[in-house]
Amino acid sequence: MSDLAIGIDIGGTKVAGGVLDDTGTIVHRARRDTPHRSKSPAVVEDTIVAVIDDLLAEVPGGSVAAVGIGAAGWVSVDRATVLFAPHLSWRHEPLRERLASRVAAPVYVDNDANAAGWAEHRFGAGQDESHLMMITLGTGIGGALVTDGRVQRGRYGVAGEYGHMMVVPGGHRCECGNRGCWEQYASGNALVREARSLLLANSPLAHDLLARLGGEEDTLTGPMITEAAQDGDQTCVELIADIGRWLGTGLANLAAAFDPGTFVIGGGVSAAGDLLLQPARETFARELTGRGYRPMARIVQARLGNEAGLIGAADLARTAVRAGAPDGSGAG
Amino acid sequence: MSDLAIGIDIGGTKVAGGVLDDTGTIVHRARRDTPHRSKSPAVVEDTIVAVIDDLLAEVPGGSVAAVGIGAAGWVSVDRATVLFAPHLSWRHEPLRERLASRVAAPVYVDNDANAAGWAEHRFGAGQDESHLMMITLGTGIGGALVTDGRVQRGRYGVAGEYGHMMVVPGGHRCECGNRGCWEQYASGNALVREARSLLLANSPLAHDLLARLGGEEDTLTGPMITEAAQDGDQTCVELIADIGRWLGTGLANLAAAFDPGTFVIGGGVSAAGDLLLQPARETFARELTGRGYRPMARIVQARLGNEAGLIGAADLARTAVRAGAPDGSGAG
Repeated sequence: MSDLAIGIDIGGTKVAGGVLDDTGTIVHRARRDTPHRSKSPAVVEDTIVAVIDDLLAEVPGGSVAAVGIGAAGWVSVDRATVLFAPHLSWRHEPLRERLASRVAAPVYVDNDANAAGWAEHRFGAGQDESHLMMITLGTGIGGALVTDGRVQRGRYGVAGEYGHMMVVPGGHRCECGNRGCWEQYASGNALVREARSLLLANSPLAHDLLARLGGEEDTLTGPMITEAAQDGDQTCVELIADIGRWLGTGLANLAAAFDPGTFVIGGGVSAAGDLLLQPARETFARELTGRGYRPMARIVQARLGNEAGLIGAADLARTAVRAGAPDGSGAG
Repeated sequence: MSDLAIGIDIGGTKVAGGVLDDTGTIVHRARRDTPHRSKSPAVVEDTIVAVIDDLLAEVPGGSVAAVGIGAAGWVSVDRATVLFAPHLSWRHEPLRERLASRVAAPVYVDNDANAAGWAEHRFGAGQDESHLMMITLGTGIGGALVTDGRVQRGRYGVAGEYGHMMVVPGGHRCECGNRGCWEQYASGNALVREARSLLLANSPLAHDLLARLGGEEDTLTGPMITEAAQDGDQTCVELIADIGRWLGTGLANLAAAFDPGTFVIGGGVSAAGDLLLQPARETFARELTGRGYRPMARIVQARLGNEAGLIGAADLARTAVRAGAPDGSGAG
């Protein structure tokens, strides 16, 4: 059997793929845009198949052990069906079955945060950790728990939605329909919302940021705030620290519940590094229940960047095939 | 090897023990009070040994496969050391080692909520559930996660402290030192606090309850509130429903994170039955993230009552011995 596996990362506007070798290195890459505005399952499926074909054309012999698909959504516990993907039009979509006839390798589908957590466990910042909790801070918050060499998927496959734990009763409205979800306080969207409200308030604290934007508030993005903070803009440092403190509060909640040894913080917002993580560590140390009577989890930055999902999806699929679990049970 | 195991439940003022057979039935019982006001480790240890000796005297042949100790506190992941027990004077107490020379069977120590969760998984309300979450509502909230036939203890053994997840920023002060912990809103202590504040406000809504207490507010206990509610006192029905709604909120948070198939609700407050659980189920259904796109966990009452800890401690210890894991790793 080939040692190679293909990982696919489905984004909002493109499908990225890679061929992963046994050491966790991506040896070939491919990507295709999904047609503008079209998020129909059939179109995304065609794009996935095209990227896989592009990659297989690069592989000697034209075959791989397995194909793993990472999707931002809920995947059934047998890793065959996308139950719900908020940003794609998938509702109970039998993705594995649809791809099976078009791809000459076993296919597994997985939640993108599960894939990222697995990648960091196998090849990244959590390699020596038996109880790793992954937190991905992007527009929202994704998460995964990897313990004793397995992704803990829950009873129905939808564990790890830490971003939708309520931390503020009656707080900000969340896309999920509830109020006060953690991701409304500790995500990229929260960072941009807070910065924008400062701009709209015409606070002198935000004048430097506004100048950076050439006076165009609407062009503000999370990475711009991070860049300004790294350049020394104190307001942006504060804004990121606020997000970091909410991150620490949520991590303290999760440590009370799960007691992980290491939190790995990934996703776009984690590019802020210690500007984010140091306030998170301080708040965590202040709010962890039983502090002083227990060992403290480490909080570290992810290492694999935005390819973690692709790497993890490939390796999870390969691991499942090696374990002889064609239905996905019993491995990963 | 004997099929019997001894379970010990250490309470605030007494040590209760039982001999458990292979079907989960307690075939002998013993209990001794711990001397008034004395919570020194040595005195509690002597009492434990006395109860074990009482029980062994009842067992034909005088031997059992294992002894399990359930304690309200944090236990190291190797189940040998009590890291911290708030209501006993144990701080890094090597309980297993201390008992080893005095008890003629392998000894395991466990957190009482872990033991209760295991008991409900093996012999109680969660026998068919692969992903069971136990919630014990007593003066505070204890918890345990049992998945795929194992208690999930976390990296250092202190997972399951769900009661200390923050649900109200800046909320009620908790014994743990933080504010706004879930157990300040959904426990027996919360129930009594709220009822007492109603009495102190001299609200007409509380006059019936005050009459029940013979005008003596200070004699109020949680079970009295439950009894009054079961007798039809509408104020007490409301007070329990308030606790139930906070229970439902916390369960929705835990379902977002863990995705269990069944929540088993035990502890003294669960005696209120559907007066507690029905509001919890309604709030859970209203607040679960992704409702409508996922199967919904069941919320059921525990079956083993206040002997769950003793039963679970005995069976966890026996399971560890059978798995050939004298240090407690690899089983339970």
